[in-house]
Amino acid sequence: MIPTIIWNDNKVKMIDQTLLPHELKFLEFDDYRDVAQSIKVMNIRGAPAIGVAAAMGMALATIEYKKLPKERFLKSMEEAANLIRSTRPTASNLFWAVNRIWKIISTFPDEPLNISELVIEEAKIMAQEDINVNKGIGKNGAALLKDGDVVLTHCNAGSLATVQYGTALAPVRAAIEEGKNISVIADETRPRLQGARLTAYELHYDKIPVKVISDTSSGLIMRLGKIDKVIVGTDRVTSDAVFNKIGTYLVALAAKDNNIPFYVAAPTSTLSLHETIEDVTIEQRDSSEVSNILGKVQIVPDGVECLNYAFDITPFRLLTGIITEDGVFTPEELLKKYK
Amino acid sequence: MIPTIIWNDNKVKMIDQTLLPHELKFLEFDDYRDVAQSIKVMNIRGAPAIGVAAAMGMALATIEYKKLPKERFLKSMEEAANLIRSTRPTASNLFWAVNRIWKIISTFPDEPLNISELVIEEAKIMAQEDINVNKGIGKNGAALLKDGDVVLTHCNAGSLATVQYGTALAPVRAAIEEGKNISVIADETRPRLQGARLTAYELHYDKIPVKVISDTSSGLIMRLGKIDKVIVGTDRVTSDAVFNKIGTYLVALAAKDNNIPFYVAAPTSTLSLHETIEDVTIEQRDSSEVSNILGKVQIVPDGVECLNYAFDITPFRLLTGIITEDGVFTPEELLKKYK
Repeated sequence: MIPTIIWNDNKVKMIDQTLLPHELKFLEFDDYRDVAQSIKVMNIRGAPAIGVAAAMGMALATIEYKKLPKERFLKSMEEAANLIRSTRPTASNLFWAVNRIWKIISTFPDEPLNISELVIEEAKIMAQEDINVNKGIGKNGAALLKDGDVVLTHCNAGSLATVQYGTALAPVRAAIEEGKNISVIADETRPRLQGARLTAYELHYDKIPVKVISDTSSGLIMRLGKIDKVIVGTDRVTSDAVFNKIGTYLVALAAKDNNIPFYVAAPTSTLSLHETIEDVTIEQRDSSEVSNILGKVQIVPDGVECLNYAFDITPFRLLTGIITEDGVFTPEELLKKYK
Repeated sequence: MIPTIIWNDNKVKMIDQTLLPHELKFLEFDDYRDVAQSIKVMNIRGAPAIGVAAAMGMALATIEYKKLPKERFLKSMEEAANLIRSTRPTASNLFWAVNRIWKIISTFPDEPLNISELVIEEAKIMAQEDINVNKGIGKNGAALLKDGDVVLTHCNAGSLATVQYGTALAPVRAAIEEGKNISVIADETRPRLQGARLTAYELHYDKIPVKVISDTSSGLIMRLGKIDKVIVGTDRVTSDAVFNKIGTYLVALAAKDNNIPFYVAAPTSTLSLHETIEDVTIEQRDSSEVSNILGKVQIVPDGVECLNYAFDITPFRLLTGIITEDGVFTPEELLKKYK
């Protein structure tokens, strides 16, 4: 398991996930604008990982602006925060992370000269917290898995979606650490193929058995009795639904129809329980992500438009449970505990 | 609308669908083995089209063997029939077509010298019947569509899946001929992308409005109210389920969950109502169709296996109606009429 993102010598260092599974290459940025761009074009993706990237981007901005007088410093930081927040509209971790950094910035009493150290320290703490949270999800989720279980997952909510260890894949990792035999079936997850490229890559890298299926196959595979549990991640949990990668709703419907438990691994930082479905903007991305696979093969005739919604809405009624770092909850229990 | 397959001067001429949407190229075969291979590698696909291809392949075999004495002729024809039947195990049209040709061959009283003409004639009749059946499905299905409807379809059950006109797309074509505004949203249909490549191609070619979505998107698109009806084709209808391209079951679940009518366009040649789900072998194709998109982009790490089931099982309880050339039926009515 390689860390997805680290703070290194006043630079942000991250795996370029657009090149996986073919090449393991690292990007290094010392400009917050480059970090924002890397979130937007998905060099880094996954709700927890982009939360930490956002915090580290804010830290880079403080280095750039720390010599400015306070008022201009705050104005410049606000621009940086707005740019970072604008990159992906659906993931709540992005907002959560920027807000958490902003609390330090806005309460800082004097000249901004030393604020950098405080913000850098906070970003590093957030990275470490992410790992701790994921280990908690792993421990709580592992208790749901039996020796021999096959887990279906959609998209990548693994180590590569976080700083390390993953959310949806954390229970798998933890159960295997406890000595259980667990294997994974990964939906390929069109259009960006995070399941085929990233989930398969990180599990294969860590010698955890994994097979890939087309997104069209999950229903049949469940019907054939090949899946014991489904675990997916999430980008935002409102009081009535889970927002996660497009395709999640179909998997949840198939799990329900086949009486297969469907779990969502949700760090509490993704909980946004004051909101409902109507409050959330579903990110629409460029038609070309569908029409041209990874920018390499055009699959749709010239002149035909594609619709490309990035996230799906899975209503609470389709969930068996939500795994947080604090425990496993039904939707009702979750609302009771956190709302 | 270009004919997908025709009998031309003692040759079988067909569109090479593996090259679409980039290139419109025709293949010509005078050897039944090449026709069998073209079915297997999916130069031609779609249940009705491969039925006619199988009949025309049998006709080529009669030309090759017609000078043999009767016993050796029959033995050779049996080999040809077996080869053709073995190409795709799930589509019942293949068996239906070979059996229909076999009836002529097996009842032929004398030397096989003139049998070729009879078989060629029968294959041509089957091609024309296919078009007539599709027009019937179109007429019956068009009555279900209202002006302004948006129809979601999965895979390609259009003109390219038949000799001409299509099955699932026949109601769309007929409704437009009746003056209604109808547009189509096409699931891309991984792994072979028949929706993105073929449905989008033939509709765009015929100036029928079409947009493409990833297979992961159908649930959300329905939830957002963008779909009025779903119509798909089928490769085989048993007494309890519809067998169609992998992914159909997920679309049916989403339609049910969103109260959207879900129709299956089924020529009566696809009805196999003496069978049940347990009788049908689901074709498994090579892992590389999933791991390597159209043989051009590898999306899965080396060493990771993919599962590749070609067909899905959609139980009768998820269907609103089945459109045949005779009318539109609920599953119960269908069983009553045809079983």
